[in-house]
Amino acid sequence: MTSLNSRKTIRKYQDKEVPSDLLNYLLSVSECTQTMGNLQLYSVVSTTNAENKARLAPAHFNQPMVTQAPVVLTFCADFNRTTQWTLHRKGNPGYNNFLSFLNAVSDTLLYCQTFCNMAEAQGLGCCYLGTTLYNPEPIIDVLNLPALVMPVATITLGWPDECPELSDRLPLKSILHEETYQQYTSEAIDEYYCPKEDLEVNKNFVEINKKETLAQVFTDVRYTKEGNEVFSKNLLKALVRQKFLSEKELKELF
Amino acid sequence: MTSLNSRKTIRKYQDKEVPSDLLNYLLSVSECTQTMGNLQLYSVVSTTNAENKARLAPAHFNQPMVTQAPVVLTFCADFNRTTQWTLHRKGNPGYNNFLSFLNAVSDTLLYCQTFCNMAEAQGLGCCYLGTTLYNPEPIIDVLNLPALVMPVATITLGWPDECPELSDRLPLKSILHEETYQQYTSEAIDEYYCPKEDLEVNKNFVEINKKETLAQVFTDVRYTKEGNEVFSKNLLKALVRQKFLSEKELKELF
Repeated sequence: MTSLNSRKTIRKYQDKEVPSDLLNYLLSVSECTQTMGNLQLYSVVSTTNAENKARLAPAHFNQPMVTQAPVVLTFCADFNRTTQWTLHRKGNPGYNNFLSFLNAVSDTLLYCQTFCNMAEAQGLGCCYLGTTLYNPEPIIDVLNLPALVMPVATITLGWPDECPELSDRLPLKSILHEETYQQYTSEAIDEYYCPKEDLEVNKNFVEINKKETLAQVFTDVRYTKEGNEVFSKNLLKALVRQKFLSEKELKELF
Repeated sequence: MTSLNSRKTIRKYQDKEVPSDLLNYLLSVSECTQTMGNLQLYSVVSTTNAENKARLAPAHFNQPMVTQAPVVLTFCADFNRTTQWTLHRKGNPGYNNFLSFLNAVSDTLLYCQTFCNMAEAQGLGCCYLGTTLYNPEPIIDVLNLPALVMPVATITLGWPDECPELSDRLPLKSILHEETYQQYTSEAIDEYYCPKEDLEVNKNFVEINKKETLAQVFTDVRYTKEGNEVFSKNLLKALVRQKFLSEKELKELF
């Protein structure tokens, strides 16, 4: 676990395979992670074939890691397997709803993170692609995901071929609230964010983006209101398609 | 990381504090976890006061861990802090949408799981309370969570006072799909689930619940269609209240 203190996202990989025995060992031991009712509400689709990686790449905005990494793992919230099991055993499954989606998302992300911690402890490098949530439908198509299976996280995996700087993080007191949540005053914001804003790398980032503040790089360039609204719709549509959200559930909500 | 092979959920704790230095160290080092754009879209509310634990307990169906554990940690998807920061820096934040909720859920659960892995490596015991998603509104009230903050996971934490059996898990091949997702045939279901169904503990579970199959214990007793539908509505209502879901977003979805 000592590897955690120095963990970094790795986006460049050596031209060297990840042995399937090692990959399987890591995926298998990560199954110890806590899971709802021991149902293990997740599946992993492993993509190692170059052609299939190329088919996934556009959904991830053609980030080069997808085609360059030896292994691409798509972690999926999966209530299909449990549903198939219960149907084969005279059960009456009712998991085509939003709660069940978030239950499965929880299981999936906890499992995914244990896997990343384990893989990094073995010297492997990972990059977490948040783009999975932006464009779920093309991923569903490429991976052939049935109803009640939803891609939620993608990890590119390989042996590191770079050694990036450690990223800064906010001080603990900025994320930890004792007993009840304390709203952030402008003094608190200054205290917590000024050290980040003063880093050379971030000053440079503001300049390159021709903005006045670091915050504006996030709201005006990287994660804009307009973009979020478009991708939010993509995500909701995919949830409807995968039967995790229905018109019936949304009735009387407003 | 060797602790992972033998990790177990711990529901009974010694009457012994978790030193705040240790807790803070674990929460702090876990911040190394990957996060979207290095925004750290999470907050943790720590509950150690007995009265506050008692106020949280009903939301968790009065599971005894909530009042018995020395520490209760509520991990919250938090786009409020980032929004406050950007507002104080002339930004134009647009994170009151469903995509942003799932982005923050991802950050939160990854962080939460690294914390659990770290805590268990230190000999602490954790229990993950999925009930957080069933009754978010009373938790929001007790913890005083503002808009764009949503509780998604609760961990009870302490020094173990029990040594439960290891839980069984499904074989890796049942959760791993090569290149594309393969639907489960009845033969596959038998192969993957029979060993679990044949365990004495599970046979006993079926008998106690007066059911014919283990699957029916899940669909008819533990996670029923009717219950899921009620709790799903709770969850969606809470998302609307916390401004992560709006009528506008759901328009033209059906």
